[in-house]
Amino acid sequence: MVEEPAPASISRPRRDTGDVGRLVGRARDGDPRAVARLISLVEDESPLLREVTAALAPYTGHASIVGITGSPGVGKSTSTSALVGELRKAGRRVGVLAVDPSSPFSGGALLGDRVRMQDHALDRDVYIRSMASRGHLGGLAWSTPQAIRVLDAAGCDVVLIETVGVGQSEVEIAGLADTTLVLIAPGMGDGIQAAKAGILEIGDVYVINKADRDGADTLRRELRSMLALADRPEGGWRPPIVKTIASKSEGLDEVVAEIDRHQGWLVSSGELEARRTRRARGEVESIALTALRARWGDVHGRSELDDLARQVAAGESDPYAAAETLLAEL
Amino acid sequence: MVEEPAPASISRPRRDTGDVGRLVGRARDGDPRAVARLISLVEDESPLLREVTAALAPYTGHASIVGITGSPGVGKSTSTSALVGELRKAGRRVGVLAVDPSSPFSGGALLGDRVRMQDHALDRDVYIRSMASRGHLGGLAWSTPQAIRVLDAAGCDVVLIETVGVGQSEVEIAGLADTTLVLIAPGMGDGIQAAKAGILEIGDVYVINKADRDGADTLRRELRSMLALADRPEGGWRPPIVKTIASKSEGLDEVVAEIDRHQGWLVSSGELEARRTRRARGEVESIALTALRARWGDVHGRSELDDLARQVAAGESDPYAAAETLLAEL
Repeated sequence: MVEEPAPASISRPRRDTGDVGRLVGRARDGDPRAVARLISLVEDESPLLREVTAALAPYTGHASIVGITGSPGVGKSTSTSALVGELRKAGRRVGVLAVDPSSPFSGGALLGDRVRMQDHALDRDVYIRSMASRGHLGGLAWSTPQAIRVLDAAGCDVVLIETVGVGQSEVEIAGLADTTLVLIAPGMGDGIQAAKAGILEIGDVYVINKADRDGADTLRRELRSMLALADRPEGGWRPPIVKTIASKSEGLDEVVAEIDRHQGWLVSSGELEARRTRRARGEVESIALTALRARWGDVHGRSELDDLARQVAAGESDPYAAAETLLAEL
Repeated sequence: MVEEPAPASISRPRRDTGDVGRLVGRARDGDPRAVARLISLVEDESPLLREVTAALAPYTGHASIVGITGSPGVGKSTSTSALVGELRKAGRRVGVLAVDPSSPFSGGALLGDRVRMQDHALDRDVYIRSMASRGHLGGLAWSTPQAIRVLDAAGCDVVLIETVGVGQSEVEIAGLADTTLVLIAPGMGDGIQAAKAGILEIGDVYVINKADRDGADTLRRELRSMLALADRPEGGWRPPIVKTIASKSEGLDEVVAEIDRHQGWLVSSGELEARRTRRARGEVESIALTALRARWGDVHGRSELDDLARQVAAGESDPYAAAETLLAEL
């Protein structure tokens, strides 16, 4: 189940247009409060959502979108923080969206944003934002793609999206990101065998964190042989495995190098454009379908769809005939 | 993510109409091969799907749809088989749809349908069918609602849908069924605390199976106090807890009694009509949206949606504007 985007607003008062334009300008100048305000506007399904999205569009497409996923306990938050540090060393502007309900970053912007990311709290070139998951169990908030647009347009070189690796969310993150990092750690009691089946298909870079623990080499061998079984096309990307000790900031340079190498491959193979087009397609379709649902759900005070559903439930019509009636009304 | 129904077929050759009509007639006369053929037609997304659905419609709405869910190991298959036995004692015609990938019934009709349900193999008033879950991880096949229609129209008094209680599927089953049974068992190592959060919201009847094991009474107390915390409206249904030992067919009479009591409440409260209308609404909408997707995906050999998505990805348009263009073409 995917959370639905807010229906597009129709009215666009003149004075708001100016405000949104100014806000986007300030965000592009590096004003963190303007960035925060824009993310709030998209997250709260503001009536300005549509206008904000339009104002951001010309400035998007620059940032590398990097997803970070893994089971609770692999050290995802520590790794995200260490990765931010590594990217800052190279002078890159970084945005972080934490949509992991188990993350110390998420679940309340006021408290969450500051814990453990203190190192970066005073750095104006790092934006950290926790996204409410809005009951979308373990998954990404529907507003995540819009928040990515804000950070991208605000001039971030890299946008990190951190989410927990359960259920659908790992697949969703792979859909949103250009490059997906999958974190695992030895001694988690599950090993690769028990890991969710999806994990072997979504990683562009695998990171074995807590690599100083017993079992790290076994885990690496296991993972390598399982990845080798995958049927990859000639010239396709072969996901590397990197070992890190995030708590000591060890190995993050190699992670950044592999992210960059993957981004290079994405561009040269044409896969970047393909992934981004696919992503945009999903977004457009989802907005259009939501608008249609709203239309069917309430026409002139009565619901066309409900009337048809009652006929189907009563055996007076069948679902295909009802769907045809619905489409004929468009 | 919900699997998509096949787009409606347009052509309906005359001779097929006669075939489908005859097939439905034979199914209603109790011919198990006709029932099997009809389910295959809907499951295989046959071009006749639409015609079959139309032919079934007038005969639907009679059966009680009972969902059975629970974690692997609680004895779901044994319980289903014992429940079939109990319903047969009362002379009721029973259909079973097994969409549980871990079930011995499912994962291959030829082998699966016979294992453990041997008791009922020669009973012409019991239809057993395993549904392929079609990569829809742990979830219900999209064709399940159509298969329910077949069994309903074929004169089943009760249709049992068995699925595994992981992830979305337990919520999905509650969406399809009139009455949802949630099975738990002592000594599963998880208890109620660790049970999926959704479990306390979806059960209409809770069944503690393997009730002769240690911990059954503790489990019942735990469950009862957790159910008591739920905020239920005045006159709302309060889910009972029944203890069974399915392997000895003990307690199933009480399960049937509670199902019947729940069905009575559904009718008297108006909830049955509400649930069935909601279900039909979802079906109709899903068919309509799939047809729209097909239309957007390929218009005159080129894809309108892909063109728009490329513009959004390139920053030349934004998702809301693109969605509007898409809708304007309808």
